[in-house]
Amino acid sequence: MKAVRLHAYHQQPVIEEVDEPAVKGPFDVVVRIGGAGVCRTDLHIIEQQWAEKSGVTLPYTIGHENAGWVHEIGSAVSTVDVGDPVILHPTPTCGLCPACRAGNDMHCADSAFPGIDCDGGMAEYLLTSARACIKLDPGTRPEDVAALADAGITAYHAVRKAVPLLYPGTVCVVNGAGGLGHIGIQSLRALTATTIVVVDRNAEALSLAGELGADQTVLADGKQVDAVLDLTGGQGAEVVLDFVAEQGAQQDAFAMTRRGGAQFVIGYGGTLEIPAIDLISTERSVVGNLVGTYNDLAELMVLAQTGRVALHTVKYPLDAALDALADLDHGRVRGRAILTP
Amino acid sequence: MKAVRLHAYHQQPVIEEVDEPAVKGPFDVVVRIGGAGVCRTDLHIIEQQWAEKSGVTLPYTIGHENAGWVHEIGSAVSTVDVGDPVILHPTPTCGLCPACRAGNDMHCADSAFPGIDCDGGMAEYLLTSARACIKLDPGTRPEDVAALADAGITAYHAVRKAVPLLYPGTVCVVNGAGGLGHIGIQSLRALTATTIVVVDRNAEALSLAGELGADQTVLADGKQVDAVLDLTGGQGAEVVLDFVAEQGAQQDAFAMTRRGGAQFVIGYGGTLEIPAIDLISTERSVVGNLVGTYNDLAELMVLAQTGRVALHTVKYPLDAALDALADLDHGRVRGRAILTP
Amino acid sequence: MKAVRLHAYHQQPVIEEVDEPAVKGPFDVVVRIGGAGVCRTDLHIIEQQWAEKSGVTLPYTIGHENAGWVHEIGSAVSTVDVGDPVILHPTPTCGLCPACRAGNDMHCADSAFPGIDCDGGMAEYLLTSARACIKLDPGTRPEDVAALADAGITAYHAVRKAVPLLYPGTVCVVNGAGGLGHIGIQSLRALTATTIVVVDRNAEALSLAGELGADQTVLADGKQVDAVLDLTGGQGAEVVLDFVAEQGAQQDAFAMTRRGGAQFVIGYGGTLEIPAIDLISTERSVVGNLVGTYNDLAELMVLAQTGRVALHTVKYPLDAALDALADLDHGRVRGRAILTP
Amino acid sequence: MKAVRLHAYHQQPVIEEVDEPAVKGPFDVVVRIGGAGVCRTDLHIIEQQWAEKSGVTLPYTIGHENAGWVHEIGSAVSTVDVGDPVILHPTPTCGLCPACRAGNDMHCADSAFPGIDCDGGMAEYLLTSARACIKLDPGTRPEDVAALADAGITAYHAVRKAVPLLYPGTVCVVNGAGGLGHIGIQSLRALTATTIVVVDRNAEALSLAGELGADQTVLADGKQVDAVLDLTGGQGAEVVLDFVAEQGAQQDAFAMTRRGGAQFVIGYGGTLEIPAIDLISTERSVVGNLVGTYNDLAELMVLAQTGRVALHTVKYPLDAALDALADLDHGRVRGRAILTP
Repeated sequence: MKAVRLHAYHQQPVIEEVDEPAVKGPFDVVVRIGGAGVCRTDLHIIEQQWAEKSGVTLPYTIGHENAGWVHEIGSAVSTVDVGDPVILHPTPTCGLCPACRAGNDMHCADSAFPGIDCDGGMAEYLLTSARACIKLDPGTRPEDVAALADAGITAYHAVRKAVPLLYPGTVCVVNGAGGLGHIGIQSLRALTATTIVVVDRNAEALSLAGELGADQTVLADGKQVDAVLDLTGGQGAEVVLDFVAEQGAQQDAFAMTRRGGAQFVIGYGGTLEIPAIDLISTERSVVGNLVGTYNDLAELMVLAQTGRVALHTVKYPLDAALDALADLDHGRVRGRAILTP
Repeated sequence: MKAVRLHAYHQQPVIEEVDEPAVKGPFDVVVRIGGAGVCRTDLHIIEQQWAEKSGVTLPYTIGHENAGWVHEIGSAVSTVDVGDPVILHPTPTCGLCPACRAGNDMHCADSAFPGIDCDGGMAEYLLTSARACIKLDPGTRPEDVAALADAGITAYHAVRKAVPLLYPGTVCVVNGAGGLGHIGIQSLRALTATTIVVVDRNAEALSLAGELGADQTVLADGKQVDAVLDLTGGQGAEVVLDFVAEQGAQQDAFAMTRRGGAQFVIGYGGTLEIPAIDLISTERSVVGNLVGTYNDLAELMVLAQTGRVALHTVKYPLDAALDALADLDHGRVRGRAILTP
Repeated sequence: MKAVRLHAYHQQPVIEEVDEPAVKGPFDVVVRIGGAGVCRTDLHIIEQQWAEKSGVTLPYTIGHENAGWVHEIGSAVSTVDVGDPVILHPTPTCGLCPACRAGNDMHCADSAFPGIDCDGGMAEYLLTSARACIKLDPGTRPEDVAALADAGITAYHAVRKAVPLLYPGTVCVVNGAGGLGHIGIQSLRALTATTIVVVDRNAEALSLAGELGADQTVLADGKQVDAVLDLTGGQGAEVVLDFVAEQGAQQDAFAMTRRGGAQFVIGYGGTLEIPAIDLISTERSVVGNLVGTYNDLAELMVLAQTGRVALHTVKYPLDAALDALADLDHGRVRGRAILTP
Repeated sequence: MKAVRLHAYHQQPVIEEVDEPAVKGPFDVVVRIGGAGVCRTDLHIIEQQWAEKSGVTLPYTIGHENAGWVHEIGSAVSTVDVGDPVILHPTPTCGLCPACRAGNDMHCADSAFPGIDCDGGMAEYLLTSARACIKLDPGTRPEDVAALADAGITAYHAVRKAVPLLYPGTVCVVNGAGGLGHIGIQSLRALTATTIVVVDRNAEALSLAGELGADQTVLADGKQVDAVLDLTGGQGAEVVLDFVAEQGAQQDAFAMTRRGGAQFVIGYGGTLEIPAIDLISTERSVVGNLVGTYNDLAELMVLAQTGRVALHTVKYPLDAALDALADLDHGRVRGRAILTP
């Protein structure tokens, strides 16, 4: 089969023929890929930023945001059948550790991350596990939802954790209106009646945010903290979802957070510097967020299948994977680039 | 009456005669002081550290940790009678703002802080409000519980927030075994079956921690992070209650926190520096804590009156207030210094 | 002033002249009534159903669902000014008992219930307390929101408690699509993405339910339990909000509730008969609901002022109060009857 | 191997030789039984009370409360090794359905219940699954904890759900101080500082309850509801854990529950009859409880291994199983009867 494989860091991946994966263990599932998302993390992998953390051996196939159809199942698999359309939770988990037993898939003691630390989905087929498969409605095309498998679940998971804080009358700032931010706005609109204030550097992104459900938008022109404080009577927002968290945005996010409120960190790159007295004198919290649970992704699929959440996508054939990576790198992709068979 | 009054920053307070306070508003209560705690914050007030934040006008009476007997009540007060023994929530609140309506006294939009921003309790009498009074059991002496009015409530509030995270099989680190830490250990023991690991620089403090319910103690000799990781199979603790949060302890506390866990910041003085990637890749949280609610203090009184929480105290007559402050400043107080009539 | 007063049970109330109420206590507020809702409970009061529970002495003024403008304030009132438009929480509370301190207004140890156990709002003026007043936006007319002061808060409170159970993919049955049910449907739509299934005997009510946000409707023709089970794959709903709870509806509601789910009882009149084995073998819960908190009503006002919740009303002048009661009694009121000045 | 097998309802089981079970599926585990609890449900099974619900085919081996040592493992089992001491969650679950994915083992869509609907543990060996095995500390003997596998987990699960309602100052009634009640009392003592009031017909049971941590005891002599109301200032208890729920105890339990409180139903046999108005006018809840999660049992093991929870047991050799059943039936067992190899 064809696969997009990285042979050396700081060089372009290569599209080449490799053996198809096959089921080995009783819970293995091989999926025929219908859509594979192209993510900024793929660029960071090529740039060697993840080499040490992942410990992966080159060459390998990238692609960590996948959906498709079940192609082959292990002897003990009973929850999906060959031919079923599925979206894949990004980390096949063990199902046996205390974290899995509590539903916290992202803290599984023994999970893999295909496309990061083993062969991923920019290929014709992918080996995963029954525990990662979420069946799609027959009417849903894998290529249309693939982007929700990583970008979507991450935004949704943070929103889901914040919902209890966002009763009517509260304000939620969405810091950063890119792909994750768009899912965040739509998820907030579906799950709460909070006032959504979106902050971004890009006026066009803010305009789209308004169409997706934002109540107010603020251009990040250097005065964004003051603007948010003005919109909230000088108090700040009960919750700030920081999808940026670099280049000072993480400090802005804290400054936009109200007394008793919480800053949810989803993006990364920057460092938070917070005097302890500022945390305690206002009783604020800073909350880390990581991917999401299997049930989070299943819930997000319900939102997608009922039309409450959608992400604009640009389709590329698998053969054009390098074009997609280049377009992403040069800011030429609106929404999410998806590789299709 | 006699009162301990600050006339100038960086000078000792003066014990002098002033007018007794009198009830003015319908919900006012004047309390005859039975015990007034002497706190490190009193030293910081004298050193002018709070001048700007509190905006108080000198001279004024210090003392923010008070218990006594009701002496006079306003026309609309129906919940306490003259003669009742009471402990005082530190911040008389309005009862009408959204925070008060939700029980979050520490976020009241219109509260005072006697001893910080107006006349406090190092005196024979104190003016407060019916909303700050918690009736004591007849058998409880105000001087024995006064220290719980500020040090106690602050430690208890943080523990109470952490309890849902501390089911059997978890580990809770108590970073700092001073006065607040002691209340924290006893509260944890009363409310959870978590494994309590206490970290402190002082071997004697650790010995007392063991008597109060600590399961393990760790001397903070520079290797305390490694020691906690060793005790937790390399994972860290589900919760770290940081009663220090200065001189690097705040960074240690984060390093001692397990994947998916939470660092509760209670002390202050230092600055947290945390790369966003460290927060998100492990999904940790950092939680600020501030005093506590009226109901927190009422619950803590139940623990005190049933013998589950006690704080060692050293009594000084009001006339010896300057000795008490000097002893505290020079590390000569074991437990909490309490001024008595 | 004019007031609608009950002089004898089982007889029509009388519209007569009485003295205007005046402020006595420091937190008292007199409100000029802009809208007073006419409720089935008013009929039950006349029929003597509440006489023993309320202990009220006749004659007195009925009307427990009120909004208007502040007319006079007590000496200690600082949160509203004369002229402010306000909606009134139905039970002025003490603000000092443990329930009030936790925000649970409906469990206040010392509250009144104007219109039930003392003079109510079917009059030109009403005496209440500062703790009951919620300021309205200048653009909101008291007569348009009065019905939310009792019917609205009760429905909203139950929905608010159920929200954590109603993540995407769940089903919520609304049993009974009358006034409360309509608020319930709209509140569910505003706060969740659950699938809303509405059950009612009346086809017209179901049609309106669909317009308000119901995903499915079921005619209560005797086969409604089977119909709900069919719609849920034989499983039942995660939550059933039972706004009827009489004439067998309460048993249907339990039968419609899924394994691990919860039946919320809001209506009354019937008796639940549930074998303990049916509760434990499926781990279902039955949850009582009572009015709501002050903050619940404040949140509902946000939903009303942003257009997410509205209740159809029919206005009657105060002089036509007996017509309104008669119309309600004979099923001639669509939505809620409101008395206006 | 020897096994205690039921050949016909209403007749004694037979101890006979059958084939040892063997691993078939990749996640199967065969356990050599170290302790098998004898439970009143075993008597009910013989009396045919469970025949229809379980659908089991006779003959089969009873025994649903088991612990022992791993004897053989399937090809995909990695979490236990041959020789490991283990206690068994009573229902091996699928690990793939939404309930399992959320940690709600007792609502698994595809679980078995050995000893109820297939061969159980009153035998030398038992076939179960890796998902049911909890490893014990090397120092813990299976026969000493076996009773916690069903009686213990059920009591603990209910307590665990009630803990958030049981802050200091509250009262919890334990209705019924038998085997489950004893675990309940000890779990409450370990996890809360609530005031524990135990109600039972048997004075000796109450005396033991006092040793296990009860603060007050009440003899169920017909005046037990009044006695509980007297102990709680006429208010009732925030939580009533009803381990009886038959012969009127279920109605008493509701009557003992405070305004805003919750009745937890754990026992069964009776029928609850509650007028809806009594539920809503006081906003009480009735909460069903069913066995518990795998993590519940793992937590309970921590309490057992740290000495916080213990259950008195009487050991019988497997050959004396019929004596154990007869002793239980005639009320001659103190604590729990355990069959040992």
